[in-house]
Amino acid sequence: MAYKAPVRDLMFILNEVLEIDRYTNQNGFEDISSDLVQQILEEGGKFAEEVIAPINNPGDKEGCHWNDGVVTGPKGWKEAYKAMVEAGWPALSADPAYGGQGMPAVVGMAFGQFTAGASAAFSMYPGLTAGAHAGIHANASEELKAKYLPKMTTGEWGGTMNLTEPQCGTDLGMVRTKAVPQGDGTYKITGQKIWISAGEHDFADNIIHTVLARVEGAPAGIKGLSLFLVPKILVNDDGSLGERNGVRCGGLEHKMGIHGNATCVMDYDEATGWLIGEEGRGMNNMFVVMNEARLGTGLQGLAIGAAAYQGAVAFAKDRLQGRALTGPQNPNGPADSIMVHPDVRRMLLEARAFVEGGQAFILWTALQADLQESADEATAQKARDYMGLLTPVLKAYLTDKGFHVASLSMQVHGGSGYTEEFTASQYLRDARITMIYEGTNGIQALDLVGRKLPSQGGRAIMSWFGDIDAFVAENGAEGPVKPFVDGLADAKAKLQDGTMWLMQNGLANPDNAAAASTDYLNLFGITALAFLWAQMAKAAQAKIDAGDADPFYVTKLQTGRYFVERILPDAAAHLTKMKTGADVLMAMPAEAF
Amino acid sequence: MAYKAPVRDLMFILNEVLEIDRYTNQNGFEDISSDLVQQILEEGGKFAEEVIAPINNPGDKEGCHWNDGVVTGPKGWKEAYKAMVEAGWPALSADPAYGGQGMPAVVGMAFGQFTAGASAAFSMYPGLTAGAHAGIHANASEELKAKYLPKMTTGEWGGTMNLTEPQCGTDLGMVRTKAVPQGDGTYKITGQKIWISAGEHDFADNIIHTVLARVEGAPAGIKGLSLFLVPKILVNDDGSLGERNGVRCGGLEHKMGIHGNATCVMDYDEATGWLIGEEGRGMNNMFVVMNEARLGTGLQGLAIGAAAYQGAVAFAKDRLQGRALTGPQNPNGPADSIMVHPDVRRMLLEARAFVEGGQAFILWTALQADLQESADEATAQKARDYMGLLTPVLKAYLTDKGFHVASLSMQVHGGSGYTEEFTASQYLRDARITMIYEGTNGIQALDLVGRKLPSQGGRAIMSWFGDIDAFVAENGAEGPVKPFVDGLADAKAKLQDGTMWLMQNGLANPDNAAAASTDYLNLFGITALAFLWAQMAKAAQAKIDAGDADPFYVTKLQTGRYFVERILPDAAAHLTKMKTGADVLMAMPAEAF
Repeated sequence: MAYKAPVRDLMFILNEVLEIDRYTNQNGFEDISSDLVQQILEEGGKFAEEVIAPINNPGDKEGCHWNDGVVTGPKGWKEAYKAMVEAGWPALSADPAYGGQGMPAVVGMAFGQFTAGASAAFSMYPGLTAGAHAGIHANASEELKAKYLPKMTTGEWGGTMNLTEPQCGTDLGMVRTKAVPQGDGTYKITGQKIWISAGEHDFADNIIHTVLARVEGAPAGIKGLSLFLVPKILVNDDGSLGERNGVRCGGLEHKMGIHGNATCVMDYDEATGWLIGEEGRGMNNMFVVMNEARLGTGLQGLAIGAAAYQGAVAFAKDRLQGRALTGPQNPNGPADSIMVHPDVRRMLLEARAFVEGGQAFILWTALQADLQESADEATAQKARDYMGLLTPVLKAYLTDKGFHVASLSMQVHGGSGYTEEFTASQYLRDARITMIYEGTNGIQALDLVGRKLPSQGGRAIMSWFGDIDAFVAENGAEGPVKPFVDGLADAKAKLQDGTMWLMQNGLANPDNAAAASTDYLNLFGITALAFLWAQMAKAAQAKIDAGDADPFYVTKLQTGRYFVERILPDAAAHLTKMKTGADVLMAMPAEAF
Repeated sequence: MAYKAPVRDLMFILNEVLEIDRYTNQNGFEDISSDLVQQILEEGGKFAEEVIAPINNPGDKEGCHWNDGVVTGPKGWKEAYKAMVEAGWPALSADPAYGGQGMPAVVGMAFGQFTAGASAAFSMYPGLTAGAHAGIHANASEELKAKYLPKMTTGEWGGTMNLTEPQCGTDLGMVRTKAVPQGDGTYKITGQKIWISAGEHDFADNIIHTVLARVEGAPAGIKGLSLFLVPKILVNDDGSLGERNGVRCGGLEHKMGIHGNATCVMDYDEATGWLIGEEGRGMNNMFVVMNEARLGTGLQGLAIGAAAYQGAVAFAKDRLQGRALTGPQNPNGPADSIMVHPDVRRMLLEARAFVEGGQAFILWTALQADLQESADEATAQKARDYMGLLTPVLKAYLTDKGFHVASLSMQVHGGSGYTEEFTASQYLRDARITMIYEGTNGIQALDLVGRKLPSQGGRAIMSWFGDIDAFVAENGAEGPVKPFVDGLADAKAKLQDGTMWLMQNGLANPDNAAAASTDYLNLFGITALAFLWAQMAKAAQAKIDAGDADPFYVTKLQTGRYFVERILPDAAAHLTKMKTGADVLMAMPAEAF
């Protein structure tokens, strides 16, 4: 099954739902037109389909190779990476000041769905470079930026994020990697980092590591951490490559999936590093990057699900087995295609409803990322609020659902899906990591209830509720869109109820908030998708009402109807569960487990 | 993490919930005492822990080997198999007429949970032998039974079930494998079978294949199928092994999991076979076996989940990361164990509530299998009814939940769970197949609503509802057990509502029944577990009321409380979803997907 980039679906969201043409007065959108975006996405989709997708499954089977510190990727990956750099894709939405094309995030995160759908493991090489780029761009000195960012922008140099150590992942306050100032503005970095995605490979001429470490004598805990730039190969003042730095890949992790990505143990032995931003501000610096990385991870999980759905549809249309319960549909064939079976369609529509809702959620959030740069402070503030509030929701909800979709897609294949002959197994295995890395989904839920929700007295969620109320008031008239609007209003009422419960009970006992957090996040995710489905339904219905005969719009409404009828009912269950409180979880002593 | 057989949990279910001591008047229970069962399970648990569990993960990493038709298992597997045969475990609940020990199914399916938990892939070798044994035992001639069953009982000879072909899995009417009668009572079997678990290996001296094939000239479709016994090595009249038969393993399937089990392509080239039962009754014969195999598959999925839960608990107790929200619990350590976090406990308790509820569901169903043999026809009929009705529920619900538990258990591990350093990945990968084979879970749901539910005018479900009503009436008094009884009554009311909906809408349009089937099955599964949790709560509370200070009983109630408060709310969602009907699924034309 050849991967097909969902250009049409994303263009519908950009043009007809988000109406990005409205934003030409905003920073970064000056030169944007829907024709240009269409052209970029068509070319980007073609690149993903023709260059990246073909190496995906062979790369899963072959994996990466480690030999005495040297890492090589699967056959053909280096060539695909080179083609990507030459075509200029990594620069798509990077800052023009350092060689980027300056496209808005909505465009970058549309193209990103294609690369992650074509190959999640491959997309991590430019993905991690973008993460490191963001960290340096946000906080490093002009000198460091000028020296490193241009080649990271093009992808000629890669980049990584080095946080985790064997004794700490979530709790980075326990980081032991040490930085010793040399008195010349450099530091010697020593320690071991693990699970470093794209930590070492032969695709790029250099790799720029961003490394969380503790300056000698700095306090214990998070406040003692600083962020460093540590190149694999030292860069001379003229930009040419110099000596190898004291950093080496000690080995590759054996993992359930994303085999094409080199997940490295990185050993730093007095490696020369440069401070990014100020000493002791390492975590604050990292948070900038992590927010972006979390959006990227949510995108990745969902995009894998989108690709898996395509594989399931292709299989189902092709597979002849049994007969329709209402009489043969393919009487001259040996059997009907399994598309005739309601339960097969249930699985496909559930997958599709999450995929298309998720695609809209991603692009809506990307638009907020763009609007943060607005010259209008009210617009920028609202966008920042929404980004903060919805990033953990997007990351956790879309990766949970991406995995769920991959599992449904495997199920549609029957036994074939469990064999490695199809890509269903790879999608399932690849999708599973997205629920874990960049902060486990449980951590996202805690971030949501403990930090993002109460921030600024709940300003973000009140504003978002206001947007929903306005939409409901405006679009609640009798008609084909009404079920979507009613479903949205109901989900929002439940989320509001849950939010009140959190306020009343979470303050009294923080364990109540934590105990409720995952169900609350799921209720939030359902509501976010209900909002976007209602907007998509409205846009599709408007086209139909205007006489557009493209079946795309009818299909969109049919998919959305599944969301309303068959997914929204989970909202009530999440609300009931979250209100049960902490005691049911905390009563049992640890030793009784 | 060393696997620990859940002897205590299963003995609690057998003795205090099912009270198997009541059944000494029933066929097969004459010589059973709880002391004897305890002794068997302790020894069986020890065997699973010490002999089977250690080869599980190494076997996943190594897999099986094929060389020109010869298949060898991973290192140490042949030796473990031999030890199992020598200890007599395969014979545990087999018919004494052919050398079995004649233990009831409740004992066999308790021990079966240990072997499947210790190694799902390994447990399939005796598991498939038991399946083939059942097919031969139920329908073959006395001569065939006498010749083949004794050595299959001990496990000296293995057995397989050969149904699937490349063009058909679910729709066996399309089977092409051909059987040509030779006029001497034998047939020549020719064709290709795929996905044959334990199809070829070097553990046993011989392998007895049961093969679905079409006698030359027989009608197309299911009615033309017959079942054959085809030994790998022909057996002489004196029982000694003769020539190699015309059956050969053409290759091994590459799969996502259960790597230690050889999943074979089997090529039959004029292999000599003997008819099992009558010509044209192949599917009826297979149904006997499949019912048993479906219980075994449900057991397997749940047992993998049980093992995965153990691994997650061990990891969580060990992993120090972050601090409790209510203040440090391990102030002298670098961090608290992650057991302090409500969301980690949520995952563990969800896993545990499904595991312990599922264990009870399995043993209750095994008891029905035993009571089918009752001399009292009313008892036997009721047991047959319950077996028929609940087998698809048990298979689908417990395998879905086994996979869910394995995924939760991976999540508790964080990034470590995604690496192959822990067993979490193997459990997840191994569990996934149980949702597919022996009839996908979608097929189970169709079997439930289309065949099992309406059978005999709904006699089975009416009787089962009567049992629940009686339990509720008897145990609904105020007290610690009341929430369990109330939860059960509520779930049952919803299931009854759903059943009525199916009767009213499924007859009018069979697509309505099929569209509702999976949600209906889930609602059924929740209700079944609610019934068993209520019984476990009652038994545990009785011990507490009688002054028993064993914390086991308090823990049982706490786990059950999670089920009532945090899992039962899903019942309402399933009911709402199933009532949405077929149109939401069938409206979209196939080409629009």
